Amino acid sequence: MGLAEFSVLPRGERTRRDILRASIDIASADGLDGLTIGRLANELQMSKSGLFAHFGSKEDLQIATLEAASDTFIAEVVVPVERLEHGLPRLRALLDAWIDSVANTCNRGGCFFYAVSAEMDDRPGKVQDLIVKLTRDWIDALTREMKLAIRLGELKKSCDAELVVFQLHGFVQEGNWFRRLHKSNRAFHMTRESVYRTLENHATTTGKAILAAAGTSR
Amino acid sequence: MGLAEFSVLPRGERTRRDILRASIDIASADGLDGLTIGRLANELQMSKSGLFAHFGSKEDLQIATLEAASDTFIAEVVVPVERLEHGLPRLRALLDAWIDSVANTCNRGGCFFYAVSAEMDDRPGKVQDLIVKLTRDWIDALTREMKLAIRLGELKKSCDAELVVFQLHGFVQEGNWFRRLHKSNRAFHMTRESVYRTLENHATTTGKAILAAAGTSR
Repeated sequence: MGLAEFSVLPRGERTRRDILRASIDIASADGLDGLTIGRLANELQMSKSGLFAHFGSKEDLQIATLEAASDTFIAEVVVPVERLEHGLPRLRALLDAWIDSVANTCNRGGCFFYAVSAEMDDRPGKVQDLIVKLTRDWIDALTREMKLAIRLGELKKSCDAELVVFQLHGFVQEGNWFRRLHKSNRAFHMTRESVYRTLENHATTTGKAILAAAGTSR
Repeated sequence: MGLAEFSVLPRGERTRRDILRASIDIASADGLDGLTIGRLANELQMSKSGLFAHFGSKEDLQIATLEAASDTFIAEVVVPVERLEHGLPRLRALLDAWIDSVANTCNRGGCFFYAVSAEMDDRPGKVQDLIVKLTRDWIDALTREMKLAIRLGELKKSCDAELVVFQLHGFVQEGNWFRRLHKSNRAFHMTRESVYRTLENHATTTGKAILAAAGTSR
């Protein structure tokens, strides 16, 4: 869903959107388990009954928060690069947009998906299932784009797409970990360096020219 | 502290050790915040007053749990490789022992330090300070060993130790994330592949011979 669609939503829906923005913010720091209707009512200075009208249960609120975070991710990371060519140009732009969104997040607790996946990985249920699906979809999207870049001769045939996406995904999570816990200003610089060097290592001559043209935000 | 020392501890201390083992197990899944004296008393079928005799407050219990997890880490990962030569042989063995300890952990929630650092990164205080110190010490130990391997001509001078340790650390955390959340059996296989390939990329001819001699658990 594009950001533009938000502006034409009726007033009730805008309120729901504000609630969910606050929910994402709270859950990024205190987890989906720390996201209670009472806590939310207090932070938003709304009545609990007003919130219950939107979300019948804590689980409904958790699911709606995950879906809203996914919409934001798509709007910030996926939609802006849709005009780019498939293959390495789009893969590189997706990675840049993703790193920017994690590095510049306004969430008080940093990356929402990092926080809730560490929290929920031991708690089977609908909430965990949705976190697995959303993070799986993102890994699959990166892997598809990388395989296309290999078929297009932009990355070498020796590049193992699943393994390299595992590495790139790890660099972004490590950047968030290092920034949040160690308060390191260099954390996302190290993420970008690691991502760019890895892509360069696997790039063909054609691929190296694409990466050079894409520039660098190092 | 070596494992052998445990057996000569008096009975009171053995009980404390059992309590802390259960604490690490609980916190790996439900966090240090989920580690209450009541919960622990219930799981161990002990009285709350018995636990209060060991740990005066929840924070004392959290700190003692972190220190016990650190002792276990040192006993499992650091002590067994102390007989090896400094530089690349020891670096490689430290990484292998670390990956084995995370991959084969008996903790119900997987890697203890991964779980508690994601939980505590937004909560300043003594507990967070200790998590920062312990994880920092580990990153520093790996970085020192890598710098020695560069000075010894086992890794190339172009190898940026801080950046490469950031990457290797990220591969282990990503393995834990992928295994816990996505239940992937290939998670730590991908961690090992990523660690070995990265070391190989930076190894000199001397270093490649050391890596070949160290064998592979791929």
